[in-house]
Amino acid sequence: MCHDESRSSASGGGLSTTAVSNGGGRSRGFLRGWQIHNTLFNIKIMILCGFVTILVLLATISIGNFGSSSNADSVKQSFIKEETIPMTILPEIPSDSNSTDLGAAEPPKAEIFTTPNATYTLGPKVTNWDSQRKAWLNQNPEFPSTVNGKARILLLTGSSPSPCDKPIGDYYLLKSVKNKIDYCRLHGIEIVYNMAHLDEELSGYWTKLPMIRILMLSNPEVEWIWWMDSDALFTDILFEIPLSRYEKHNLVIHGYPDLLFNQKSWIALNTGVFLLRNCQWSLDLLDAWAPMGPKGPIRDEAGKVLTAYLKGRPAFEADDQSALIYILLSQKDKWIDKVYVENQYYLHGFWEGLVDKYEEMVEKYHPGLGDERWPFVTHFVGCKPCGSYADYAVDRCFKSMERAFNFADNQVLKLYGFSHRGLLSTKVKRIRNETVSPLESVDRFDIRRMHVETKP
Amino acid sequence: MCHDESRSSASGGGLSTTAVSNGGGRSRGFLRGWQIHNTLFNIKIMILCGFVTILVLLATISIGNFGSSSNADSVKQSFIKEETIPMTILPEIPSDSNSTDLGAAEPPKAEIFTTPNATYTLGPKVTNWDSQRKAWLNQNPEFPSTVNGKARILLLTGSSPSPCDKPIGDYYLLKSVKNKIDYCRLHGIEIVYNMAHLDEELSGYWTKLPMIRILMLSNPEVEWIWWMDSDALFTDILFEIPLSRYEKHNLVIHGYPDLLFNQKSWIALNTGVFLLRNCQWSLDLLDAWAPMGPKGPIRDEAGKVLTAYLKGRPAFEADDQSALIYILLSQKDKWIDKVYVENQYYLHGFWEGLVDKYEEMVEKYHPGLGDERWPFVTHFVGCKPCGSYADYAVDRCFKSMERAFNFADNQVLKLYGFSHRGLLSTKVKRIRNETVSPLESVDRFDIRRMHVETKP
Repeated sequence: MCHDESRSSASGGGLSTTAVSNGGGRSRGFLRGWQIHNTLFNIKIMILCGFVTILVLLATISIGNFGSSSNADSVKQSFIKEETIPMTILPEIPSDSNSTDLGAAEPPKAEIFTTPNATYTLGPKVTNWDSQRKAWLNQNPEFPSTVNGKARILLLTGSSPSPCDKPIGDYYLLKSVKNKIDYCRLHGIEIVYNMAHLDEELSGYWTKLPMIRILMLSNPEVEWIWWMDSDALFTDILFEIPLSRYEKHNLVIHGYPDLLFNQKSWIALNTGVFLLRNCQWSLDLLDAWAPMGPKGPIRDEAGKVLTAYLKGRPAFEADDQSALIYILLSQKDKWIDKVYVENQYYLHGFWEGLVDKYEEMVEKYHPGLGDERWPFVTHFVGCKPCGSYADYAVDRCFKSMERAFNFADNQVLKLYGFSHRGLLSTKVKRIRNETVSPLESVDRFDIRRMHVETKP
Repeated sequence: MCHDESRSSASGGGLSTTAVSNGGGRSRGFLRGWQIHNTLFNIKIMILCGFVTILVLLATISIGNFGSSSNADSVKQSFIKEETIPMTILPEIPSDSNSTDLGAAEPPKAEIFTTPNATYTLGPKVTNWDSQRKAWLNQNPEFPSTVNGKARILLLTGSSPSPCDKPIGDYYLLKSVKNKIDYCRLHGIEIVYNMAHLDEELSGYWTKLPMIRILMLSNPEVEWIWWMDSDALFTDILFEIPLSRYEKHNLVIHGYPDLLFNQKSWIALNTGVFLLRNCQWSLDLLDAWAPMGPKGPIRDEAGKVLTAYLKGRPAFEADDQSALIYILLSQKDKWIDKVYVENQYYLHGFWEGLVDKYEEMVEKYHPGLGDERWPFVTHFVGCKPCGSYADYAVDRCFKSMERAFNFADNQVLKLYGFSHRGLLSTKVKRIRNETVSPLESVDRFDIRRMHVETKP
């Protein structure tokens, strides 16, 4: 239930040919004739090679835009260079972001998005959810909202209904869900993998909103809905969300208070990973959050409002992250006291600063820390593994995801006595000899036991 | 624990250039000079274009060889036509099966595979597992082997460490695991998704054996390991394994006693889906099962033994299914009493006879039956979604998998009030209006509640 206590805290390279040197011309007539012919010939070669270059280009594109670039790239890249605030919370920019339009925004039109009856809604207004849910829980003791004293969490993730633009993208979506299956099995968390667009209007990064709402209303036994992007991996398999810390809060999200309150930065929070309590407050937040989402004019107009209101935001259609920050700041009194801005561990950890340090982490530290020493989550913001473009070099992104996956997988395989041959290797090796009394290893290496043991 | 009671039942097209017509040559000297030059020039163009053609070729290959075929196809296809026994239990044939070698087999050499000390082993022989496990369970009450009165089941599935040969294959692996996540969440079953080759020797369809053994030894709280191929989908989300039926058995597998005992058919059982109890008997079975698996000479020789021993088996290397049938028949007294050959519902249901009847099933029947009226599992035997070849037309296989996935997904989406627009559509539609009292829908449509209600 909600807490209402008094306020507390490669493009293909074009091939060219060079004119061959004059073989030997004694007569101007013949020389001219040969030169004309040679020029015609060069033109033919140019056309021929241009054609073949296009073939190579097409083949390359169909593999998945290796090294391809979109408007957004330049925006993002330049944005990255300009950016002075932590990279750990860099958000996504869609491909239709307009790089020529930076900062060119109209004055805020906050009111058009804060009058619910004038705007899009997620569904019929549910008003007494806390009492409905409480009554249901009392009537259905076989579905308790806590299991072994821990609040029931449902992890929601998902991907597009269609195959990825980059074929290799589906392979990494598969690895990403395997990684989540492992973490959630070891910590008793249920998973819902969504591949449906429940609301045509809320496409792209807005899809999560209707799905979260429906999961709350159809899973009253769940206390927390945990949204996690498909491009985010658990890299600390031992770390567990410190739920007791959030007893007085309904939204837990990674971010930085200074960026949020003082700088009004559009990357003060990251909506790629967050926990939302199953309660009326959250339903109300979703109702306030969604109206900027409908694609087309509404989302475009809202984008201008957000760009004008938030620091550093390029001009592009409204995204769920900017919209949430906008709502939390423009309606601060209404929401902020129930929001826990978490940065004591990496509920969301930006990949670029982390993936190259895994070996160092293994040397110096151990899983269970969750922060920069051993990041709980490594989030591949800007890599868009399933999209047709990325803000970073595709091969670098996939290599880094491979490293993150294997870094995490090693923590899972340890129980079985195996480890990857390297962070870029799909092959595994034995790390200890089998014995005829295997339960000794279970007692030593089972992550669930460790968790049980580390409990007060 | 085991039961030991007395016996009870596109290649890139090569580009070429043609010599241009002589622009005008009055002098033989110049003509010859120009011809020589022109010839040299053509050679340069040929080399250049050849080089670029290779580039195109490489790019095309790296996309993934669609429609590639192997010997096995012809074997399997002819085999299918000849086959008179139920298609519901058709097994896989690997790509290196030798079609020229049908029936040409040596006399059985059973003994070389039944003397453990003379053969390959899965690891150190664990002899007192039942007592070790029992002691551990007593010492670790926080990890009970039953949950809410139901024996704890761990579903094991997985896929190759590398991306699929067919790019679309990874997309269907993703859908397949989403389908398993849904079923297992709704029935309180844990999932392990394996992508590692724990034993280089036991590659291909043999990979499951070392993984099953390791899961038993590292998860003593699990009573049943449930193996399920990645090309098998749950198509009855409501049906639940009738565990009470198997109290006196350690292996539950789909098959037909007549085919097994009277016909010694190589497709009497299907090892794509089976349950194995976590006990000493199962470890012993795995030890007896594995020796035919090591790739190379051993697997090839074993293949000849199996082909000679089993009815209808084409000549190809030893596969796990034939090996299991061989062991159960050749060492009948040792094993068979603890094997439950299940065919009262589709623990494994061969896709070809089922996928075209889904609409009819929806009209006439309801989920929860699990048999031909509403198949529990639809198994895409011979489709090899991730392999480079298939025994059936690739597009037919993927269309059928799409239908099976959506047929199952509709049963999951019903709780949320949605359904696919058609069995081939990734798009969804509302099937009922939302209300302000959503818990009425939960009480009506939550599969877990139905299960609770249908309990005695």
